[in-house]
Amino acid sequence: MSDPNDLGAFLDEAWQHLERGVADAKSPARLPTFATVSPGGRPEVRTVALRHAARAQSVLEVHTDIETPKIAALRVLPRAGLHIWLADADVQIRISADVEVLTGAEIDDQWARVPPASRVSYGTMPVPGTPIPSVYAYEKPSERSRFAVLRCHMVEMDLVHLGTQHRRAIYTAATDWQGTWVAP
Amino acid sequence: MSDPNDLGAFLDEAWQHLERGVADAKSPARLPTFATVSPGGRPEVRTVALRHAARAQSVLEVHTDIETPKIAALRVLPRAGLHIWLADADVQIRISADVEVLTGAEIDDQWARVPPASRVSYGTMPVPGTPIPSVYAYEKPSERSRFAVLRCHMVEMDLVHLGTQHRRAIYTAATDWQGTWVAP
Repeated sequence: MSDPNDLGAFLDEAWQHLERGVADAKSPARLPTFATVSPGGRPEVRTVALRHAARAQSVLEVHTDIETPKIAALRVLPRAGLHIWLADADVQIRISADVEVLTGAEIDDQWARVPPASRVSYGTMPVPGTPIPSVYAYEKPSERSRFAVLRCHMVEMDLVHLGTQHRRAIYTAATDWQGTWVAP
Repeated sequence: MSDPNDLGAFLDEAWQHLERGVADAKSPARLPTFATVSPGGRPEVRTVALRHAARAQSVLEVHTDIETPKIAALRVLPRAGLHIWLADADVQIRISADVEVLTGAEIDDQWARVPPASRVSYGTMPVPGTPIPSVYAYEKPSERSRFAVLRCHMVEMDLVHLGTQHRRAIYTAATDWQGTWVAP
């Protein structure tokens, strides 16, 4: 292992996991949990798929159907918490982010890269969460206008490594990701 | 598989996973993610360990150190979202709960059952999240007064089974957990 006191190496490791999550559908970092606050004021969490990670911009991207409750939540409070637990590495990544909801022509590039088989994730009728009379009483057409990208501008990253002695560090955009060790 | 249209069987399956999470430390339901809203209004998520699941009371319990930020969050907004992803079963369990923070003599029983080796999870000095000058500049004494139980009174459970055709149902305390299929 590298020097356990190396804050930069710890952050590098987290970014490697995030980048692997984008590149490798089998990586545990592929499926973060994504927390928002509902318009009624309740914390809500669901699995999402990580689609893009850009360290230079401190940005992560997730795709969603514009008709899901998380969009309604983000319209009221455009903030999210992301969580990844990497069991093999014994590392927990927690991210706090400000979220931009992108739609329309500005996400033509992202849409072009969505595999045809995955496009049915955008357009379910009736819209997700609507009560239906029986288990399969819905259809999944592909609807370009329902596609949205959640661009998550990272504000803080909180890393924990569970070892013989735990290590925990917090990095913030405000300090240009310099980081500090904190009590775990 | 049982009848895919059986709402009760789907709920039974979820409770079996929750109960296994309590009984078996290796179960994926052992480690839900737990979302709260920070006093500053940001969604926060972290891994917790499921310690108790009582279907008759619609209650789940989690243990924590009273000095953690999630307690500060729950003091302001006593609500949580819990999330479990069961990769082998392709099932996502999402729970919305009202949370009671229990401390002192009323949790003597729970404390008595915490293994001695685990008691150091309650009492870290300085308190969790405090900046420290180097990675291991903290101590982990066991401090009974720092032990707290988060009793989560379940309000809603949202289940998704990812199959050839997805199945999703929402159950609420308000309808005595009767449940309804919803569009996934």
